Amino acid sequence: MAVYTEVGDEELEAFLAEYDIGTVVSCKGIAEGVENSNYLLQTDRNTFILTLYEKRVREEDLPFFIALMDHLAGKGLSCPTPVHGKDGEALRRLADRPAAIISFLQGMWVRKPTPQHCHGLGQALAEFHLAGQDFAMQRPNDLSVKGWHTLFADCAERADTVAPGLRDELESELNYLTAHWPGDLPSGVIHADLFPDNVFFLGKTLSGLIDFYFACNDFLAYDIAVCLNAWCFEPDTSFNVTKARLMLQAYRDVRPISSNELQALPLLSRGAALRFLLTRLYDWLNQIEGALVKPKDPIEYLRKIRFHRDVGGPGAYGLD
Amino acid sequence: MAVYTEVGDEELEAFLAEYDIGTVVSCKGIAEGVENSNYLLQTDRNTFILTLYEKRVREEDLPFFIALMDHLAGKGLSCPTPVHGKDGEALRRLADRPAAIISFLQGMWVRKPTPQHCHGLGQALAEFHLAGQDFAMQRPNDLSVKGWHTLFADCAERADTVAPGLRDELESELNYLTAHWPGDLPSGVIHADLFPDNVFFLGKTLSGLIDFYFACNDFLAYDIAVCLNAWCFEPDTSFNVTKARLMLQAYRDVRPISSNELQALPLLSRGAALRFLLTRLYDWLNQIEGALVKPKDPIEYLRKIRFHRDVGGPGAYGLD
Repeated sequence: MAVYTEVGDEELEAFLAEYDIGTVVSCKGIAEGVENSNYLLQTDRNTFILTLYEKRVREEDLPFFIALMDHLAGKGLSCPTPVHGKDGEALRRLADRPAAIISFLQGMWVRKPTPQHCHGLGQALAEFHLAGQDFAMQRPNDLSVKGWHTLFADCAERADTVAPGLRDELESELNYLTAHWPGDLPSGVIHADLFPDNVFFLGKTLSGLIDFYFACNDFLAYDIAVCLNAWCFEPDTSFNVTKARLMLQAYRDVRPISSNELQALPLLSRGAALRFLLTRLYDWLNQIEGALVKPKDPIEYLRKIRFHRDVGGPGAYGLD
Repeated sequence: MAVYTEVGDEELEAFLAEYDIGTVVSCKGIAEGVENSNYLLQTDRNTFILTLYEKRVREEDLPFFIALMDHLAGKGLSCPTPVHGKDGEALRRLADRPAAIISFLQGMWVRKPTPQHCHGLGQALAEFHLAGQDFAMQRPNDLSVKGWHTLFADCAERADTVAPGLRDELESELNYLTAHWPGDLPSGVIHADLFPDNVFFLGKTLSGLIDFYFACNDFLAYDIAVCLNAWCFEPDTSFNVTKARLMLQAYRDVRPISSNELQALPLLSRGAALRFLLTRLYDWLNQIEGALVKPKDPIEYLRKIRFHRDVGGPGAYGLD
């Protein structure tokens, strides 16, 4: 976690009194979630996650995230579900921050995903996309093309301190993507941050998706592009086409991928790689004093951008 | 935690296969324990703590700590108990570190202890002292007078960068304590670090003591002195004699405090305050790159030393 809020005894007690979840027997801060403070909360009835939303999550977006989790759970998707208090509310304040109690999802995230894990991911991603199709609320993706321009402007001046020539390469990439970004692909609610630490497995079986705090409306295929970046590269940045093929095949067994979407995958994947490069670069250049997590290396994503730029077409991802 | 070890998928699986504790359904790093990496481990049978011992805990001391927890649990004391593997061993290696699975203790530590909490603490401390009387193993307290000299020597040169005049005041205090430190008080196994975060409560009732990784053989009254420092000062460093009196009364209802011990309390309390000042000062001056916890302010303990130096006698702690 980037920050960590301590909760006082009395304020926790008062907060929990708003819920009908049993008597608390343990509440421990957990080292999960970069954006928020998370506590594992055990009562005599069940286990929960208590989340305090830190400033990187905009308070006005929280009703979207909470309603989305409620919607997905209602569709039978395995994901954390907001616990509603005695007053019906799922969102209230604790330690001067917005806070919610979320159901606990069993499972662990895998440090080294195998092709089989990628197969499970593809299926779950497609199921998530289908389940979100009739979700009524909207949230624009502020980390799409327009947002990249803002991030780039904030980082450009110091970009070359991270890697020589980085500024020019990013500017040229950004210009190309802006000129060629598609406008007409199937859209809906996307997760937008489906990295391995947001996907839980029990053994080899996927047990659920977590952390919907980047979810927004965008091209569904952009979510696939995020997953190609996040799951299908090896630690040395070589691309594992077996993982990609299994992920894509499992996805389209649930939701067909149109020819337009398939053709757009290399470009969308460049965009997704640029998005993570830019936020990592921003964090790298603006390290927070006292942060509990070291920022991640942005250069990993430069190599991924180059890979997607150099592929001949979607066949590089293992699908015809 | 000062450091945090990531455990790989396969190595965790292999490690857990050594135990008969059920199927793992969750394993989350928790933000508890400054010295070690701790995971909250849930199986389909129970909840456990998985601890990886980092370098600040000496590996050769671990059999003492593990045997002590086994001994205390055998005496019916409420404390975490090492889980023994199928081979009978409680201590093995994980991620290139010594590691153990410990039973999970329900409860939460109190951020703002009340006099009632201090009463519970005094009783539990005395019960712990009695339970440890026939523990056969020995471990010297390397953070007693001799250890303070070593710490002071490491910090002296830069001490005045933290507070002007600190070096001289510490040197004079150290010399006085060395000359007057008692040699003949009742001894046994002490906890030596019984701060509020190592004492769990369920509501107002103490549910157990944790974190025995500073435990050693020393004067039992020195443990009381640690608690006077850790529990009986308010955040503004004023001394709350009500808390002290309740703690001491509850203690001696279980184990009588001899007149010699009582007379030595102000001096032992100065020593205990100096011990925490010196380790905090050392950490302050030697901050670890990438540490997840900011070091604590050493100056708080300078004010506590001065308080104990200025008391007229043990009556200042609320006992005659």
